[in-house]
Amino acid sequence: MDFTQFPSKVFEAAVNQFATLPGIGKKTALRLTLFLLRQEKEEIHEFGNAFVNLADQIKYCKTCHNIADSDECEICSNIKRDKEIICVVENVQDVLAIESTQQYNGLYHVLGGLISPMDGIGPNDLNITSLIERIENDNIKEVIFALSATMEGDTTNFYIYRKLGSHKVKISIIARGVSIGNELEYTDEITLGRSIVNRTNFETTLPNNKNN
Amino acid sequence: MDFTQFPSKVFEAAVNQFATLPGIGKKTALRLTLFLLRQEKEEIHEFGNAFVNLADQIKYCKTCHNIADSDECEICSNIKRDKEIICVVENVQDVLAIESTQQYNGLYHVLGGLISPMDGIGPNDLNITSLIERIENDNIKEVIFALSATMEGDTTNFYIYRKLGSHKVKISIIARGVSIGNELEYTDEITLGRSIVNRTNFETTLPNNKNN
Repeated sequence: MDFTQFPSKVFEAAVNQFATLPGIGKKTALRLTLFLLRQEKEEIHEFGNAFVNLADQIKYCKTCHNIADSDECEICSNIKRDKEIICVVENVQDVLAIESTQQYNGLYHVLGGLISPMDGIGPNDLNITSLIERIENDNIKEVIFALSATMEGDTTNFYIYRKLGSHKVKISIIARGVSIGNELEYTDEITLGRSIVNRTNFETTLPNNKNN
Repeated sequence: MDFTQFPSKVFEAAVNQFATLPGIGKKTALRLTLFLLRQEKEEIHEFGNAFVNLADQIKYCKTCHNIADSDECEICSNIKRDKEIICVVENVQDVLAIESTQQYNGLYHVLGGLISPMDGIGPNDLNITSLIERIENDNIKEVIFALSATMEGDTTNFYIYRKLGSHKVKISIIARGVSIGNELEYTDEITLGRSIVNRTNFETTLPNNKNN
């Protein structure tokens, strides 16, 4: 079906806005708008206002650049977090992903992207200077690189590593290896090769191990 | 991934609003919100305001109950449409679907549902009285039933048919038969049986036929 003409301009505007979202085509946009129209007026209001408020009120943490409701995000202001470790991630989604594992209790630093000369993204487009400043001034003991295992991720890791120069801080990188649940024969050679080189003491992988 | 804690309340509210939409789970809602956050503030505003405006400004045509920007929809107010034919449909989506075929130039009447005793929907919950009034007062020559080929659709058709009683108006129903492109062996028996009983003169199906 091709809907070129809508009987209402406000209706059309709503459909078009839905269709700007990734993975939502014109037909789904229409279905979603018709769904909204079946709701109470107050609920449609609430829906729209959630995004108006998002635009007006969202802030970014002055320290780690994570999303926040004030100048400091809930992670940076949480007194229970370990303030001596910084986990370097590409974006907010990665913060949420790592938080959901419940395996990390330190702070974050959101770069806002990765160095990618092909896309015209250089170190100055990212939050790297503020990361170096934090490491130099905030008594940081360890920096964990948690960027994508791609060329851009590796380039960014290496750039930050070089920038830190002689600064005395432990630098680690999240483990790369065979994904849990994956069959060995379908794992690519580079990952498999790395997982042999960086093999782990078996005992640390056992349940109830205090190092696990 | 299970994202129970978001670092921002306005962010969380936006994610939750997306997740109220049909077919959009928590993870997609998160992805869509993060996508919006990457846009300019004005664009996020525009997105939210489209729905606030939808809630505030959408109207329903006083004549046919289609969505509209004023008291009369663009179809009812279009002088080029044939004002002597009414196509009876269940909802706004069906109006759009029939419009997109570009095969119909008359008016519509949106019932707002179908008679369904199981769901507690009776004739008085639908726009049937206003339909009868239009047929009796507006010099209507033909009424086309274009409801779903279900028990509820058939019940509603029959109810309206009985309501019209002795009123002199031609009543037709959209053709039911084998869908174009469908193979015969996969067509259900009832549809196939009907399509034999209601067979069409072959010549009318030929291209360039003036009755086509």
